[in-house]
Amino acid sequence: MKSSHIVRQQYKITRDDRQTLLQQKPLLLWFTGLSGSGKSTLADRVEQELHVKGYKTYLLDGDNIRHGLNSNIDFSEEGRKENIRRIGEVARLFIDAGIIVLTAFISPFKEDRDRVRQLLPEGEFTEIFVDCPLEVCEQRDVKGLYAKHAAEKFRTSPASPLPSKPRNMQK
Amino acid sequence: MKSSHIVRQQYKITRDDRQTLLQQKPLLLWFTGLSGSGKSTLADRVEQELHVKGYKTYLLDGDNIRHGLNSNIDFSEEGRKENIRRIGEVARLFIDAGIIVLTAFISPFKEDRDRVRQLLPEGEFTEIFVDCPLEVCEQRDVKGLYAKHAAEKFRTSPASPLPSKPRNMQK
Repeated sequence: MKSSHIVRQQYKITRDDRQTLLQQKPLLLWFTGLSGSGKSTLADRVEQELHVKGYKTYLLDGDNIRHGLNSNIDFSEEGRKENIRRIGEVARLFIDAGIIVLTAFISPFKEDRDRVRQLLPEGEFTEIFVDCPLEVCEQRDVKGLYAKHAAEKFRTSPASPLPSKPRNMQK
Repeated sequence: MKSSHIVRQQYKITRDDRQTLLQQKPLLLWFTGLSGSGKSTLADRVEQELHVKGYKTYLLDGDNIRHGLNSNIDFSEEGRKENIRRIGEVARLFIDAGIIVLTAFISPFKEDRDRVRQLLPEGEFTEIFVDCPLEVCEQRDVKGLYAKHAAEKFRTSPASPLPSKPRNMQK
């Protein structure tokens, strides 16, 4: 294609155009809670409900994020912060594309979640704290994190795959 | 919500479900070419054509990537590689969501583009080399990169914001 044939168009397809085409307003539903609290299960269920009603959704979770985009992030404090930051930025792109996004990540720190909230226009970020008692989460121990944490206590290791305390998860 | 009320559903909303709802097959249109070659302009035009036909699209370019997700990446060799890797991973998520993605990045290295290609199922990655003569790109010099490059030559600086030679861009 010859460059002289390119007519420069100033207008791009906008966020509004995409919303009109998709016939919906995008939204980020941010599920937060302890490991085993049921974030993914609930997000799944909500996505199913939305999908059968014709809403265009996408679910970001460990399955599609940790092995892909965030595969080069470690579990250090900096790493965890960067993990949430990237998820927030990806969610923002999906929102911009007009999609309803659901995310299911422990995301224990209010500061990190608030940073994501600030990426989006007012009212497009909804935080859902999956308020499941610690004992129930421990009992489920889907990923074996609580057993690992208990074992680590004997070694008095400073690093732990768990958020220190559910306190940070509450408002 | 009490955890006992949660009925575990094994089935998630799948890639196929989303394609059915969106009534399209997703695709990544990867525009590559020199700075000033017209990648963004062309990608814009193609997106407009697709949009008016009812296709659900999203365009990833410097505007929405460099200031957000990839704002913490420098212009070193490693940085450029990571830049393209993340774009590829984000495109993969959009493809998984059922969206037709267009990307407009210089992406001079075949190796990096091929890595993105390998992220996707066969036939879902289409590379579009915007084959604009170097002289025309230099003349346009939309971002002032060529002027900067010329200036740097006098200082015999090893670093340059430009891909060394269009050679890498060709098949």
